[in-house]
Amino acid sequence: MSSKDHKAEKSLKISSIGEKQLIKRLLSQSRSLQPNSSFFDESSFKSLSDDSALIDLGDKYLVVTSDLLLESTHFPSDMSPYEKGAKVVTVNVSDLAAMGAQPLGFVLSWGLPPDLPLTDFDDILEGVLQSCQRYGMGLIGGDTNQSDELILSGTCLGIVDKELVLLKDGARPNDVVVVTGPLGVAAAGLEFLLSPPNIKTYLKKDLKPSTQKLITDHALRPQARLKEGIMLANTGKVTSATDITDGLASELGELVEASSTNVGITLFEDSIPILPEVEEAAAALDQNPLDMALYYGEDFELLLTVPPNDLEYLKKRVELYEVGVVTSSGCMEIIDKSGKTKILEPKGYQHLG
Amino acid sequence: MSSKDHKAEKSLKISSIGEKQLIKRLLSQSRSLQPNSSFFDESSFKSLSDDSALIDLGDKYLVVTSDLLLESTHFPSDMSPYEKGAKVVTVNVSDLAAMGAQPLGFVLSWGLPPDLPLTDFDDILEGVLQSCQRYGMGLIGGDTNQSDELILSGTCLGIVDKELVLLKDGARPNDVVVVTGPLGVAAAGLEFLLSPPNIKTYLKKDLKPSTQKLITDHALRPQARLKEGIMLANTGKVTSATDITDGLASELGELVEASSTNVGITLFEDSIPILPEVEEAAAALDQNPLDMALYYGEDFELLLTVPPNDLEYLKKRVELYEVGVVTSSGCMEIIDKSGKTKILEPKGYQHLG
Repeated sequence: MSSKDHKAEKSLKISSIGEKQLIKRLLSQSRSLQPNSSFFDESSFKSLSDDSALIDLGDKYLVVTSDLLLESTHFPSDMSPYEKGAKVVTVNVSDLAAMGAQPLGFVLSWGLPPDLPLTDFDDILEGVLQSCQRYGMGLIGGDTNQSDELILSGTCLGIVDKELVLLKDGARPNDVVVVTGPLGVAAAGLEFLLSPPNIKTYLKKDLKPSTQKLITDHALRPQARLKEGIMLANTGKVTSATDITDGLASELGELVEASSTNVGITLFEDSIPILPEVEEAAAALDQNPLDMALYYGEDFELLLTVPPNDLEYLKKRVELYEVGVVTSSGCMEIIDKSGKTKILEPKGYQHLG
Repeated sequence: MSSKDHKAEKSLKISSIGEKQLIKRLLSQSRSLQPNSSFFDESSFKSLSDDSALIDLGDKYLVVTSDLLLESTHFPSDMSPYEKGAKVVTVNVSDLAAMGAQPLGFVLSWGLPPDLPLTDFDDILEGVLQSCQRYGMGLIGGDTNQSDELILSGTCLGIVDKELVLLKDGARPNDVVVVTGPLGVAAAGLEFLLSPPNIKTYLKKDLKPSTQKLITDHALRPQARLKEGIMLANTGKVTSATDITDGLASELGELVEASSTNVGITLFEDSIPILPEVEEAAAALDQNPLDMALYYGEDFELLLTVPPNDLEYLKKRVELYEVGVVTSSGCMEIIDKSGKTKILEPKGYQHLG
């Protein structure tokens, strides 16, 4: 590196590179320093770029995932303390769902502002505990710290048969691309909730009460597709999987990148499940509902690739929406409603940058 | 609850109750909601008040611990990015050491200020990776988020034979209370580092360079007693154990409280290992060196109780300092240098309140 390059590198700030780039930087430096251990096999190393880490326990994997939520970044002001507690569990369980793992337990580190009312603390805890119970696990540990803003840093442990674990890297040409539910619902809810007060007053008059309820429920009380993830893993037929936290396009990019062969993906705009309520909200918000589905995330639906011959078998067990097909092009494309093919950028919601 | 009580409860802030009280509140509400699971046995539930959570894997326990560090609370301004990264690993590994567990892997959630130089990020990561390597494990996952201040939220996984795990709850009358190293060193270092600039200039002239080096090394580059914890666990002779993060008095209180029998502890002031450098620094800082040893923490030494007949056997394997004895009084006492017995309050450094 020349001294000029070095100076340029020195002045670079975190904000100048996106979250995904930062994680790549992290992984490339981590890989060279993994110790030899009987608790790590090939998939454990692959899992470094997956939704969760895998630890080799013989015929099973222990699955470990961490997600940290911050008041200023992750919680709309309308979100109740109970909902904040429930959300930190859901975002972590969603990562287990994407691997088909059964939750074992949840560990929570708290950052607590000194002026937080104790009743809020109790309500957050109630949300955490109820949500843990819904997903069949207990809160098993954690620590508390004083901080300027509320921080909820969760770690979720799960377990899955080695033979059944769902990973990001198995998509093959001709596989069908499916999702477990309609997309863009949480996006519509968050855009509505985050609107400036004067616009919100207008939106409240303009949008049907049932639409308001549907989209805000999705934004404030998201659910992880745990049952579906485990059922799909148990069939042994899914070739790759992830959960949609950062938007469909970004997650598709992850599957393409994780694949060892040079696969591509072609989406069909016509097939992307977008609810009429999302169309209604997008129109009122003067936004494109397709963008909400492709680039926003927070729906916590699962994205999977499955062999075409197994699709009907799987659809009898879990509600699935076909949105595209895996190709051998190495490119991501979308065919719009008029039949035109466009490049699909793997961009999405980034929590950083 | 009367409406007046309820109103009083509503107006209570987090700052009005200490960290330990908050954790008790958390545990008492968590216990009632643990699901039935083959992955939890009696010790798993006991571990809720221990340094780490235990998951039942047949003849072994999976050990899980989480500790979150914040720029404003946990890092003195003299601490380098590399040292911050190393510290978040050390504080977590120290919890495993206290249970005699072998580390398996480390998961790190980052909160990153947008204006953090990328070189600082790389240095923190380097500290994390080198520290993971020192303790024989890899960095296996995590996530990144934008935040106002630097947040490093670590989760460490470990494994230990069920028969050998060290817990807080086994202290018995007549056991000897021992620690693995001198106490108050990190306290002296932190008090020196956190002194106002004008006082620091004076201290720098007053304290021997070797003293400055010793105490700041302990404060900035703490080490976990992992090797010692595992060796001690392997002997099968330790009756209870914890690591000293919040000060000796506070951790002794934890052992007394965890015990199912009504034990007490009597300390001998004369026996508490305090280095001459700590005496020197305490004098310069106009502080009591004994208080630094009893109430400050951050030394990450282990605190253990061992049967008197096994003490010599253990001392041949690990350096141990006898500081007191377990009694059946139910009280915590300290016998001072003049032979007078005083009550020892189980207070310590609290990260909250």
